[in-house]
Amino acid sequence: MNGRSNKPQRSRRFAYDGLDRVIHERARLGVLTSLMAHSRGLLFGDLKDLCGLTDGNLSRHLQVLEGARLVEISKSYKHNRPQTVCRITPQGRQRYFDYVAVLEQVIVDAGAAVKANSYGNAARALVRG
Amino acid sequence: MNGRSNKPQRSRRFAYDGLDRVIHERARLGVLTSLMAHSRGLLFGDLKDLCGLTDGNLSRHLQVLEGARLVEISKSYKHNRPQTVCRITPQGRQRYFDYVAVLEQVIVDAGAAVKANSYGNAARALVRG
Repeated sequence: MNGRSNKPQRSRRFAYDGLDRVIHERARLGVLTSLMAHSRGLLFGDLKDLCGLTDGNLSRHLQVLEGARLVEISKSYKHNRPQTVCRITPQGRQRYFDYVAVLEQVIVDAGAAVKANSYGNAARALVRG
Repeated sequence: MNGRSNKPQRSRRFAYDGLDRVIHERARLGVLTSLMAHSRGLLFGDLKDLCGLTDGNLSRHLQVLEGARLVEISKSYKHNRPQTVCRITPQGRQRYFDYVAVLEQVIVDAGAAVKANSYGNAARALVRG
């Protein structure tokens, strides 16, 4: 056994270049999925609760997402209290879709790996008798 | 429209705590998926090609994965040349499975969000006449 026994496939097969780092970061993935699920926008406080983030953390991640034009943030007043509403932009939706397509590929690859291993183990057990 | 129009669901609904940061990092996700797909191990050079990483990058990520006991690395000689073989550990396989289960939830949530938006748009179009 020399580590080559199951021949590796083509170059960069598992590079997953499409896993956009702006979206892939765990907290930001949660933020964008929340905003996808609430297409008409979420208040800052609700988004914070849904994602289990602190004020500071959510602000920091929203800044990154706003900078990348994936999210837009508007400030207004309601009953004399300021409120911040966050929404995903059309560009954000598109990039989220592209990202999720690559995520699905990871899941397909993971599933294929599990299946291949099961067959391999069964075959080796057969060979060993 | 005040950003609350589609009522947010329960707290931490989109926190995705199970997205283990050791595995979630894009390059490491590629490394682990490669090793899952090659259960008998991969040579350092093959793993590097499959993941599209440089020597330095792969070394750094392997160090993190080895430190977390998700991967084991063995060095040996073949035809008088040193070779480094990387393998996923049983613990690594288990944590990868747990991670992928959460990833599947993200995809389910993304799919539900898209569907809800389509219905919402259709309903709004109907209301508008």
